[in-house]
Amino acid sequence: MNISLAKIAELVNGNVEGDDSIQISGLGKIEQAQPGQITFISNPKYQKFIETTKASAVLVSQDFPPVSKTVVRTENPYVAFLQLLKFFHPPLEMIEPGIHASAVIDSTAKIGDQVRIGAGVVIGKNCVIGDRTIIYPGVVIGPEVAVGSNTVLHANVVLREQVKIGNNVILHSGVIVGSDGFGFAREGVLYHKIPQVGIVIIEDDVEIGANCTIDRATLGATIIRQGVKLDNLIQVAHNVEIGENTVIAAQTGISGSTKIGKNAIVGGQVGFVGHIEVGDGVTVGAQSGVSKNLPPNAVYFGYPAKPIMQAKREEAAFRRLPDLLKRVSELEAKIAKLEKANL
Amino acid sequence: MNISLAKIAELVNGNVEGDDSIQISGLGKIEQAQPGQITFISNPKYQKFIETTKASAVLVSQDFPPVSKTVVRTENPYVAFLQLLKFFHPPLEMIEPGIHASAVIDSTAKIGDQVRIGAGVVIGKNCVIGDRTIIYPGVVIGPEVAVGSNTVLHANVVLREQVKIGNNVILHSGVIVGSDGFGFAREGVLYHKIPQVGIVIIEDDVEIGANCTIDRATLGATIIRQGVKLDNLIQVAHNVEIGENTVIAAQTGISGSTKIGKNAIVGGQVGFVGHIEVGDGVTVGAQSGVSKNLPPNAVYFGYPAKPIMQAKREEAAFRRLPDLLKRVSELEAKIAKLEKANL
Amino acid sequence: MNISLAKIAELVNGNVEGDDSIQISGLGKIEQAQPGQITFISNPKYQKFIETTKASAVLVSQDFPPVSKTVVRTENPYVAFLQLLKFFHPPLEMIEPGIHASAVIDSTAKIGDQVRIGAGVVIGKNCVIGDRTIIYPGVVIGPEVAVGSNTVLHANVVLREQVKIGNNVILHSGVIVGSDGFGFAREGVLYHKIPQVGIVIIEDDVEIGANCTIDRATLGATIIRQGVKLDNLIQVAHNVEIGENTVIAAQTGISGSTKIGKNAIVGGQVGFVGHIEVGDGVTVGAQSGVSKNLPPNAVYFGYPAKPIMQAKREEAAFRRLPDLLKRVSELEAKIAKLEKANL
Repeated sequence: MNISLAKIAELVNGNVEGDDSIQISGLGKIEQAQPGQITFISNPKYQKFIETTKASAVLVSQDFPPVSKTVVRTENPYVAFLQLLKFFHPPLEMIEPGIHASAVIDSTAKIGDQVRIGAGVVIGKNCVIGDRTIIYPGVVIGPEVAVGSNTVLHANVVLREQVKIGNNVILHSGVIVGSDGFGFAREGVLYHKIPQVGIVIIEDDVEIGANCTIDRATLGATIIRQGVKLDNLIQVAHNVEIGENTVIAAQTGISGSTKIGKNAIVGGQVGFVGHIEVGDGVTVGAQSGVSKNLPPNAVYFGYPAKPIMQAKREEAAFRRLPDLLKRVSELEAKIAKLEKANL
Repeated sequence: MNISLAKIAELVNGNVEGDDSIQISGLGKIEQAQPGQITFISNPKYQKFIETTKASAVLVSQDFPPVSKTVVRTENPYVAFLQLLKFFHPPLEMIEPGIHASAVIDSTAKIGDQVRIGAGVVIGKNCVIGDRTIIYPGVVIGPEVAVGSNTVLHANVVLREQVKIGNNVILHSGVIVGSDGFGFAREGVLYHKIPQVGIVIIEDDVEIGANCTIDRATLGATIIRQGVKLDNLIQVAHNVEIGENTVIAAQTGISGSTKIGKNAIVGGQVGFVGHIEVGDGVTVGAQSGVSKNLPPNAVYFGYPAKPIMQAKREEAAFRRLPDLLKRVSELEAKIAKLEKANL
Repeated sequence: MNISLAKIAELVNGNVEGDDSIQISGLGKIEQAQPGQITFISNPKYQKFIETTKASAVLVSQDFPPVSKTVVRTENPYVAFLQLLKFFHPPLEMIEPGIHASAVIDSTAKIGDQVRIGAGVVIGKNCVIGDRTIIYPGVVIGPEVAVGSNTVLHANVVLREQVKIGNNVILHSGVIVGSDGFGFAREGVLYHKIPQVGIVIIEDDVEIGANCTIDRATLGATIIRQGVKLDNLIQVAHNVEIGENTVIAAQTGISGSTKIGKNAIVGGQVGFVGHIEVGDGVTVGAQSGVSKNLPPNAVYFGYPAKPIMQAKREEAAFRRLPDLLKRVSELEAKIAKLEKANL
């Protein structure tokens, strides 16, 4: 697909400086873009690339300094770039409209309008699927599950019985929602399974990465609040609650009954012990181990997790430790000498 | 479902103190229970909630102090609560009895009595499936696999060729059993695949969490002994052996040929290097890195894992390190002064 | 299957010392081998087992010292052992030749010669599948995917739209290739999804372990170069590149846009932050956290990752820290005394 720069300016509500008849075929990052592509500068540290980029045009902000390069001035070049991203890459029709003949849908399930259901999908008794939701091949949905509208369940997702999924949710391939919580009653050396009879609630606008596991509650609900974004391979244990718009990177694990506040940012491979509360707006660095409650807006890091300034101070001191050992040995020698002199 | 407290007392073999005609509609945790629900007190630290809980009745032990609240005295209130949990939440009929028409079962496979097999299940040549086992939709079973009785394979489990699964086993969704071990013969910079021709043996009463991966042995068998409980997203490499009734939390990884004893307790996100032996009854704290043999009944923690007391002592010293640096600098200044004075 | 030792010698191009008429029924590791089995000695530290092994014969090198045990001398005993491994364990015919009737293959897809496609496989529009490739049951392939020749996709693998898989590739069960990268544009507390319109390229001879997740690029491609071997449960984020013949152990995570060189060796549960470059031939120890560029051939370890010698020195110093605190307290007492004496 080729379109003129004039047309692009129209799409992003911008103004061309230079030849607006040039044809644009796609998008690229400023260092990698090729002739025929358009790129953008949002972060000032990339300004230096404006002269060397091979891109045929660059999206820049209204107050960007004058340059010889052909540019499109627009209010927010990054947002404009995202708009063009959608324009040049319209979503592929991944599966056909309608319900594939090989899907196995219980007769009691209620399927909304314009739902797409792929080959081999299984939907259990009394399920409700909202309008325009897309269910890719290989998805298995147990009985009494509710899925909202405009939601996407990628291939091989599993929703166990009675879980509730909101609107505009994206569950990537291999996500398991509603597997049993890890709960056992110990009797001597034996462990007896505690029935896990709670559910999982995933609210609107949540996105969950590939192969994450979200366990059902023992009693009550495991809850993932509106707008939460989880990366891949994350473990969410029974009765956990994650607050609105919290973002968590890959391979992090949250133990049972822990509650994470809203607007938090959690790095990858972090571990949270069970039964703690992590405040709103908290930031936790990658690979940290969080073993106690964290106050709101705290920035924690390390194993065990500590306030970031403390962690950095300790780490800096740590690097001086081999040297410190030498210094103390020297002091001991000097003092022995002084003591002898003072006898 | 509503039943009278008198009936509940009968179910748990207990005695009511208070009005035994009140109707109970369900269960709750003591802090969260609502009127109409019954709760329990097992741990003395929850005794204080007896006066404030909104629950209509509380399961307590025979020797619990007299209270004004309506209680049911019973030998073990926690066990009684689990009994009621099963009573109020009978398992949903997740899939229909019988074998779904869309399942693809090789004609040589032997399927036991009262087995349930869901839509789209694939079962290979010469498999044997025990009585009353439930196989949910999307499960794929390779040739020559043996699965015991009363076992549950949740949706999208994969059992590769020749693995052996015992009785009363639960494999949660997305579990992969029998994938190739990670074994290569190096030749210069190239790695040649070593055929992984061993198997996996999972004994009776094992439960394995969602999306765990259990690799087959190179030669011989990867073995998970009776009563082992694995949480989600755990990696078990080729030729590993895990002893009876050992419990392991989520996202832990066990490298090739390592042997973990029985009755051990392992936290989440722990890593074990290969070719080590971890004794019976060992406890390993979350996120630890275990790089050598551990003696029986040891309690280890940290990265690298150390005896817990040593780890705590070192961690306490670590927190004093920035202060220690200052103290040593002060000592150096004082000694320089003393040395000058002693010239 | 039983064959004579003479026949075995022929297979591995070796010479028998001892009775070449004995019958061999299989293979074993030297400590575990049983009568009737053959074993091998490659590593000199296993030489001591030659007298005690129960194996009926042992593969040894040409320059192995003379022994009374029946041996087969051959140039490379380990390679010979691998040859016999393949001989005694010919691969099971896991699925039938041809395409299973229940597979759902878009009419526009091009399927090569001698391809095997299992039950319930779904293949989207305009896909191309190379000759002799095997696709196990439950695999879902989105539109416009290219898969090379002699490649194996194990049960329940998902390939999202437009990804490219090379020749002789093995993807183990539950692998997800081409899930969306974790990319959001923040606006206040909200996160807006950035369309992930790039692809994934997996080159020839790559093996990827069970339940790994390989995200598609935001723009451009996530690239896994020829000969890379990934263990289970590894996370590869958007726009990552992994160089030729690099080997990575289980549960490691690589954040967005990070580039790992060729011939590197990475332990299990390692985390790499985003946007860094890790040089060719680097070794990174298990559970390390890599937060900055690493030079070629470096050996790093720890959290945060440091050159291995520095990490060991610091760890050794760390163990002396509780003792150091005592020594400094003693010094302070002595100096106080000296200062008093010097007044």
